[in-house]
Amino acid sequence: MKIKIGILGYGNLGRGIECAIKQNDDMELAAVFTRRDPASVSILTDNVPVYSVNDVEAHKDEIDVMILCGGSATDLPKQTPEYVKYFNVIDSFDTHAKIPEHFANVDKAAKENGNIGIISVGWDPGMFSLNRLYANAILSDGKDYTFWGRGVSQGHSDAIRRIDGVKDAKQYTVPVDSALEAVRNGENPELTTRQKHTRECYVVAEEGADKARIEQEIKNMPNYFADYDTTVHFISEEELKANHSGIPHGGFVIRCGKTGWNNEHNHIIEYSLKLDSNPEFTSSVLIAYARAAYRLNKEGQNGCKTVFDIAPAYLTSMSGEEIRKNLL
Amino acid sequence: MKIKIGILGYGNLGRGIECAIKQNDDMELAAVFTRRDPASVSILTDNVPVYSVNDVEAHKDEIDVMILCGGSATDLPKQTPEYVKYFNVIDSFDTHAKIPEHFANVDKAAKENGNIGIISVGWDPGMFSLNRLYANAILSDGKDYTFWGRGVSQGHSDAIRRIDGVKDAKQYTVPVDSALEAVRNGENPELTTRQKHTRECYVVAEEGADKARIEQEIKNMPNYFADYDTTVHFISEEELKANHSGIPHGGFVIRCGKTGWNNEHNHIIEYSLKLDSNPEFTSSVLIAYARAAYRLNKEGQNGCKTVFDIAPAYLTSMSGEEIRKNLL
Repeated sequence: MKIKIGILGYGNLGRGIECAIKQNDDMELAAVFTRRDPASVSILTDNVPVYSVNDVEAHKDEIDVMILCGGSATDLPKQTPEYVKYFNVIDSFDTHAKIPEHFANVDKAAKENGNIGIISVGWDPGMFSLNRLYANAILSDGKDYTFWGRGVSQGHSDAIRRIDGVKDAKQYTVPVDSALEAVRNGENPELTTRQKHTRECYVVAEEGADKARIEQEIKNMPNYFADYDTTVHFISEEELKANHSGIPHGGFVIRCGKTGWNNEHNHIIEYSLKLDSNPEFTSSVLIAYARAAYRLNKEGQNGCKTVFDIAPAYLTSMSGEEIRKNLL
Repeated sequence: MKIKIGILGYGNLGRGIECAIKQNDDMELAAVFTRRDPASVSILTDNVPVYSVNDVEAHKDEIDVMILCGGSATDLPKQTPEYVKYFNVIDSFDTHAKIPEHFANVDKAAKENGNIGIISVGWDPGMFSLNRLYANAILSDGKDYTFWGRGVSQGHSDAIRRIDGVKDAKQYTVPVDSALEAVRNGENPELTTRQKHTRECYVVAEEGADKARIEQEIKNMPNYFADYDTTVHFISEEELKANHSGIPHGGFVIRCGKTGWNNEHNHIIEYSLKLDSNPEFTSSVLIAYARAAYRLNKEGQNGCKTVFDIAPAYLTSMSGEEIRKNLL
């Protein structure tokens, strides 16, 4: 019997989940739930229903794990504590500062209803968090570094699009090579925001717009760009479409630490991702944790969990014997 | 109250454990057990007893977790199932082919006595295994690569030392850069043994020994060197001591995989280690899992476990709140 997955919210992430389910034989897509008119939503998988999110409770018994594909700003803080009342749920909540509050809300609702909610699943938070934790547990005397990119930041691209005279834009976050090298060489550098990442912007201006003014507005935008070395390239709409329509991302988590009776030995632990599609990779992580949620709940567990609380063996469809034989 | 750690076997690994305990405030070294005459063993930590391994049972109640620092060939297959009768134990058993058998033996003895035995802890098996598992669970359609080095292989160094006319030797396993690059570029190469690693030997010959013959014996040695491109450097004893007395190691675990409705997107997950001291890093991993063994046993769990079975949160002394706030 396959694990029946529901998708709530059918955007880039929802479509990524749909693709990931196709790659995992122990799962099937049971239904998609949308805030739009279900008749207007066409999905990739044959013979799977699309329902209104308003009817979700009626399908309580048809779904083993519901994957919540809403945004972290306004959707998930409400959706995850709400839907964990009816389902085991997974989300990719990524507002780092609000994780403790979100955890508490989901934990309460999950426990009251005997379900599992795994929050903040993806690659950061998610796989990067795991690697920070493992590396910290191993090298207790050390220093952490996280670099993001080269990849598209949706938030920064949106911020540029809101500028007057901008028709479209894509922003890439780029780690500074020399900073990465200094970290890898064990130099333990103290790095400012500016020294860690640069920002590369590809902008399509409206006809007749003042490009010099747009460039200044971008470069001086507080929080988003002012603390970075930013380059702005004005390109045509065709060029943006041809060369910048993907959603690649990635990054590096590095911990440098010392061991030895007199701290005489250095060690570097590095984890990196190079992703053609940020939402599809995130979806693949979500699907693995959906498997874990299903199994843990079958074992009688409930409450809110994060990637820190899940033993790795729960993530794979292989048996304990198989993973000890083939992967250990 | 601190976690009381015992060390059984005081070689490079035992000393590494001793150093790692010093870095972890929630632990203390309770005793060292040796097969040698205890009076002949001098340890680094003040006021900690050294006992004969024959008396280990008498100290059953003084140790929360015993870390077994014997070798995988003959020590651990006997020691781990034996000592898990009295203690929670951790070992670094690394004979990959015999892990299923070792697991079964330890599991039986551990369950009969209500203790926990975590086997095959370190970096390979250990952290590399974990990264293979996570990457396989996420990218179900993909290919794994593990490269080792640049680092000292004790087994290969020993094999050279057994050749007639060799006074001393150190052997480095070195990953082939072009193979690593092909993997990172997502080319999914099929790599032979020779294409993945080279072997670099630094040899001190006895006076008057036939160096050409030694070099040929090394290069043609079956299993150890015959399948590799091997270089042999004859150096002086002083040079060996000055430049090759460390025990560095490391390596790379890479998984390349595809996602998307038509497998149109590529992803690369890479984990790498660059270690000044192989035994001290291994010890730091063992210590983190000793913490987990202690906690899991306090929760009432028992039996044999591997790194796959341990939720990451058990490895750190930080609380759930702290890790969610600081590392997620």
